[in-house]
Amino acid sequence: MSEGPFKTLIGELTPPMRLMMTPGPSSIDPRVYRALAAPVVGHLDPWFKTCMDETQILMRQVFQTENRVTMPLSASGSGGIEAAVLNTLEEGDEAIVCVNGWFSERMYEIALRSPAKITKLEVPYGRAVDPQDVRKAGAGKKIKIVGLAHGETSSGVVTALDPFRKVADELGALLIVDTVASLAAEPLNVDKQRLDIVFSGSQKALSAPPGRSPITVSPRTEEVLRNRKKKVQSWYFDLTTAMNYWGKDRLYHHTPPISLIYALREAMRLTMEEGLQVRWERHRVNQQALIAGVEAMGLELLVKNPKERLVTVTPVMIPASIDDAQFRNQLLDEFNIEIAGGIGPLKAKIWRLGLMGYCAQKANVLLLLAAMEKVLVDQGARIQAGAGVGAAIRSYAGAEAAVATKA
Amino acid sequence: MSEGPFKTLIGELTPPMRLMMTPGPSSIDPRVYRALAAPVVGHLDPWFKTCMDETQILMRQVFQTENRVTMPLSASGSGGIEAAVLNTLEEGDEAIVCVNGWFSERMYEIALRSPAKITKLEVPYGRAVDPQDVRKAGAGKKIKIVGLAHGETSSGVVTALDPFRKVADELGALLIVDTVASLAAEPLNVDKQRLDIVFSGSQKALSAPPGRSPITVSPRTEEVLRNRKKKVQSWYFDLTTAMNYWGKDRLYHHTPPISLIYALREAMRLTMEEGLQVRWERHRVNQQALIAGVEAMGLELLVKNPKERLVTVTPVMIPASIDDAQFRNQLLDEFNIEIAGGIGPLKAKIWRLGLMGYCAQKANVLLLLAAMEKVLVDQGARIQAGAGVGAAIRSYAGAEAAVATKA
Repeated sequence: MSEGPFKTLIGELTPPMRLMMTPGPSSIDPRVYRALAAPVVGHLDPWFKTCMDETQILMRQVFQTENRVTMPLSASGSGGIEAAVLNTLEEGDEAIVCVNGWFSERMYEIALRSPAKITKLEVPYGRAVDPQDVRKAGAGKKIKIVGLAHGETSSGVVTALDPFRKVADELGALLIVDTVASLAAEPLNVDKQRLDIVFSGSQKALSAPPGRSPITVSPRTEEVLRNRKKKVQSWYFDLTTAMNYWGKDRLYHHTPPISLIYALREAMRLTMEEGLQVRWERHRVNQQALIAGVEAMGLELLVKNPKERLVTVTPVMIPASIDDAQFRNQLLDEFNIEIAGGIGPLKAKIWRLGLMGYCAQKANVLLLLAAMEKVLVDQGARIQAGAGVGAAIRSYAGAEAAVATKA
Repeated sequence: MSEGPFKTLIGELTPPMRLMMTPGPSSIDPRVYRALAAPVVGHLDPWFKTCMDETQILMRQVFQTENRVTMPLSASGSGGIEAAVLNTLEEGDEAIVCVNGWFSERMYEIALRSPAKITKLEVPYGRAVDPQDVRKAGAGKKIKIVGLAHGETSSGVVTALDPFRKVADELGALLIVDTVASLAAEPLNVDKQRLDIVFSGSQKALSAPPGRSPITVSPRTEEVLRNRKKKVQSWYFDLTTAMNYWGKDRLYHHTPPISLIYALREAMRLTMEEGLQVRWERHRVNQQALIAGVEAMGLELLVKNPKERLVTVTPVMIPASIDDAQFRNQLLDEFNIEIAGGIGPLKAKIWRLGLMGYCAQKANVLLLLAAMEKVLVDQGARIQAGAGVGAAIRSYAGAEAAVATKA
């Protein structure tokens, strides 16, 4: 057999060193890279079973839950959506999905592939759905699940969960929450807030590599899953069988990405060493400085209501005089900084500035603002010299003064 | 908020250094670990798009195909099964699944979750299905797919594919082939053998970390997928949308595990640097030595027909006097060597000795045989001293002599 036509030489892997001020993947702590490259063992190795236990303990800490079913799915955050929706919905069920962006729209699309009847409640990107609309839409119906995104990555909106819990209780519905963009950055307490299925992604504010979707399932949801009439339409995302492996029996289901579990475990160790409250506050303080900086440069925020601003993703409107692609390419080429553009209806209308986990640092915020000023000025924008960086520094100083006063 | 009840200290990650003579995950070349820990970039980074191109070029080389749709799924090998089966099957379709072990049984189970009518053709673990039985089962029916495992990981059986291609042609059916345990170890040429969907796993004979399922789809299968009446019941595994990202448009689908793509790319570079034929032969020669060794120690093979012995997994019968768990635990504790037990009906009946990719080395075979002798003797077996190692050395010498004669 000749390998002739297939013989193309592919060179050494030499990725550039980017600073990822994006809505994920975020830059990664060196300790997590070290864990990632640790020796792989077998998925049924007794040592690995302990490693799985520890990963689950850490995950319960991060989610703030005692849910038995708490594990990382072998998938991206979108796999978490698929698992949450397809495990709960069956023929004859009804569901309400709140859509305020690309990823909550995805939850709706995935729900449409189930045999259930799905109602979509939609608001424009940049706003949060009103829980009263869920109440109205569900009135007099038997709603099995209400689904929404805690943090909408596409629009930078955070939705307050408690009012949705209240409405879901009235409707007798399970509450399914996408925390891909919010976990470990926005305040969240799965048990106190009585959330039924909560899933996330490894590559956002946890700052692990992409490829894992942490998920947690309340005991009463477990009961619902046990009482299904038919098997889940996806074998891969069937939570009951996946839990046989992650549960106390450690029964083989599929071979999980050992290396990514190492990395996620280390990222969660870093998260809990810092402490959740400290981490939430760090994100808040850094975003305040970033907002002060971009506003001082004359940029406008997409999300008008300060209470609805997701701490990890700050979307700013692209000024009319600036070319989206040219701006982002120059940031990448000249500074090795990646930011994200808009998606869906916001394509070419916004930039999304990410502050996730390891990336949410003073030095990164100041560098990003400085680099943005340079590129904006190169493209003809008029900005008072140093305005963005200066405003951010004053914001940090204010935050430090507030801490000093409290102490 | 108190973190009190959740505060359990989890220590540093310190995995043991195992030699993984298992049916996967296999031990990993240091170059692959280095690639794994390279800096993560964004999934839409222009540099990463080139990295994806290169990954796909290498994958086509490994599969020996020019199929446009050739990419790594963000899942384990079982995700490959799910994608292959759920993308092809719709309401009203009929399928035949050949079952001769745990993983071909899994293909059958996943197919049952589709709305199609599924016929299962089953033979005992340790044998291959007879293609004539497929011909009989399909006679007079409109069969959409015939599915089988090229290498059955659970039973160590390799199935010759060409007769199945012939029968599938007669039936007008697509041929779906699980090469999780065989790719890059057993001879395979997707284009010449005209296989329709072929999928594999990253952690077997490619010796990358687990978590990726390389898959390739023939042009005529693409056509079948385009003509589906309904959307695929899984969004995550919908090949048409996944290909928008891996296709020339690079449209965002989900965030793939960047680090695992780096590692898989490097593992495939190593594979192609070695050359497929050389690699297939290396596996063959090492398995011959391993077989000579275990037989010299008085152990019996599960697969009686030498032509049906899968080169990567050699199942040996556990002698009546030896305790399965005790044997494997001692190998692990005393030598840091992992081998696998049996699964399904073969549980506690066989050991599965793996020779996959980076693990398929002379030094490992000799060490494994030496360690097995030590543990068997400790557990009371009577073995002529050094019989296994001695027989393996003679097998290697014979193989070298044959090469010398040819040259």
